[in-house]
Amino acid sequence: MTDISKLGEFGLIHRLTKDIKSQNASTHYGVGDDCAVLHYPDSEVLITSDMLMEGVHFDLTYITMEQLGYKAAMVNISDIFAMNGDPRQLIVSIAVDKRFSVENIDEFYKGLREACEKWGVDIVGGDTTSTRTGLAISITCIGEAAKENIVYRNGAKETDIICVSGDLGAAYMGLQLLEREKNVYYEQYDALTKKVKEAKKSGNQENLAALNNDLKALNDFRPDFAGREYLLDRQIKPEARGDVIRQLRDANIRPTAMMDISDGLSSELLHICHQSHCGCRIYEKNIPIDYQTAVMAEEMNLNVTTCALNGGEDYELLFTVPIGDHDKIEAMEGVKQIGYITKESLGAMLITRDNNEFEITAQGWNPLRE
Amino acid sequence: MTDISKLGEFGLIHRLTKDIKSQNASTHYGVGDDCAVLHYPDSEVLITSDMLMEGVHFDLTYITMEQLGYKAAMVNISDIFAMNGDPRQLIVSIAVDKRFSVENIDEFYKGLREACEKWGVDIVGGDTTSTRTGLAISITCIGEAAKENIVYRNGAKETDIICVSGDLGAAYMGLQLLEREKNVYYEQYDALTKKVKEAKKSGNQENLAALNNDLKALNDFRPDFAGREYLLDRQIKPEARGDVIRQLRDANIRPTAMMDISDGLSSELLHICHQSHCGCRIYEKNIPIDYQTAVMAEEMNLNVTTCALNGGEDYELLFTVPIGDHDKIEAMEGVKQIGYITKESLGAMLITRDNNEFEITAQGWNPLRE
Repeated sequence: MTDISKLGEFGLIHRLTKDIKSQNASTHYGVGDDCAVLHYPDSEVLITSDMLMEGVHFDLTYITMEQLGYKAAMVNISDIFAMNGDPRQLIVSIAVDKRFSVENIDEFYKGLREACEKWGVDIVGGDTTSTRTGLAISITCIGEAAKENIVYRNGAKETDIICVSGDLGAAYMGLQLLEREKNVYYEQYDALTKKVKEAKKSGNQENLAALNNDLKALNDFRPDFAGREYLLDRQIKPEARGDVIRQLRDANIRPTAMMDISDGLSSELLHICHQSHCGCRIYEKNIPIDYQTAVMAEEMNLNVTTCALNGGEDYELLFTVPIGDHDKIEAMEGVKQIGYITKESLGAMLITRDNNEFEITAQGWNPLRE
Repeated sequence: MTDISKLGEFGLIHRLTKDIKSQNASTHYGVGDDCAVLHYPDSEVLITSDMLMEGVHFDLTYITMEQLGYKAAMVNISDIFAMNGDPRQLIVSIAVDKRFSVENIDEFYKGLREACEKWGVDIVGGDTTSTRTGLAISITCIGEAAKENIVYRNGAKETDIICVSGDLGAAYMGLQLLEREKNVYYEQYDALTKKVKEAKKSGNQENLAALNNDLKALNDFRPDFAGREYLLDRQIKPEARGDVIRQLRDANIRPTAMMDISDGLSSELLHICHQSHCGCRIYEKNIPIDYQTAVMAEEMNLNVTTCALNGGEDYELLFTVPIGDHDKIEAMEGVKQIGYITKESLGAMLITRDNNEFEITAQGWNPLRE
């Protein structure tokens, strides 16, 4: 492993960016000066930025540096699609503490590049620096869209149909699964180290040797993810739904409002209702949920609808379309109609399977709430 | 003080951004959706991004949250000027731990806004989140420039004159001063707490009471900054040199290469030489140094030229102009000609006051070096 201090900031930047080739005509100048230079004469420039902090947004016992790079890029690319734009450039800032080697940063960039290549995005700049403790990542993504094609959160109209791509709650169940397996490991580890202490005290050498062997064997601990791969993938390798954006364009559908689901369906629905000055009615039976999500929720004694409503990080698209587009959406693979937009005075309501009505409240992920 | 968890992410964002009014025609849509929407039909878009981490880039015992907001915005605005651009928008990401109150974030934004108002910059988005420990800030600044006006680092030509705005080394001396006063405080504090411990051990109540009074009096410790205000200002409240950019435009001077001095003069000179494939000769006697910087260096037994060459954070402009502009620059207030560009094979040289030649090496601030 190579110590980062051997390269220094400029050596590291050179290593990370020397092979980058720009793919977009809008990228005039990338890494290497005080600013990147972009050119957007015929369209609007979309910009979004996200900060990811170790211990809050990710846990390096669950996710590799490569996966983290991929995810960090994808969740920002997702925000560009959520405006009906096309992602073009990425600016990457990363601050590392002394635990990290040059190779760790290489892996992070490998993941970044994979995500960027998937959607034709150029890495055009950023900052590489150090932190006292913990890994900090800040990504800015730049995209473009013709003015008339941009979809905001505030355009939903009464009678519009509410649609969701893919399925919901899986990323959240993936996280639950990861935390469960981490706990299983630490329970075994804690129990063993306690026994080792006792054996040391009592001087039982034979027992101590056996216990130390058990501890060594624990290094081979493999979490039990069999049959749960989809949930893990959804948590660790989210995909921005540019494919859905293309489908909508091909079908000549222009959503009236749209956003990506990062904090949870209920939270995002309330954003659209609030900004569009409308209400909504969504139907529990229509919320798309994968089989593995349902099984896992059952196993963990969680209400699967609650998971789908409030679990974050699915990065699916939530959008509204005029009622006239009903048949086109119906014909579309992987998009579900979950309800419709109402007058603001009717509130945001969930209709359960047994026909009860509940007001939707935002209980999604909020890093600044206790 | 208001607990941030009372407001949550969206409440906090609303509080911070509700009064923001856009000033620029290029700002089509600011805070409130998945992306900000900008419009640059007739110019190039300049983008720069910087990450500032507590304990690495700033120390909250030296700088208030308001000053930090001002500085974080200014150093990014400075990068836009360094390309001969005009700053237009700012995206602000901040991650705080439990020490921070809503009022702390208000103060940070107050400083941000002051810097932005100074240069007509709109705050158009960002991220507000939490961190396990420490304050993390990431700022992205967007600006514009006509293609033919952009000044890169790579355009310096043989015989060009090398110029520097303002004076150098003061921000570094300001930091030395702050650290010295912090040490004075902690030395007194440590000595007193040691004596308190001893008094407790020996049971000397009278002595203990006197010592506790001394400890209380230490709360009123005021660092000795008299006559050093300029150095502090340079460290804590740096100014982006947009005024120099305007002077240059008014005088019809277009630099051939330019950057801002954030890591130190020698480091930045080497960037220009490296990217322009040239060498340089600069003269020690021409490096602009303020009187306070010189006095302070003397007092601390530091070589003032070394401080000016390698001290970072001055945010002055370093630029090269064709030799034909010599008289125009000469007539300019606050800009010094420090040397000239040579053939690459001649290297980057400093000519000392006693006419010795030294090769310039980058010893400026590098957060990833030990």
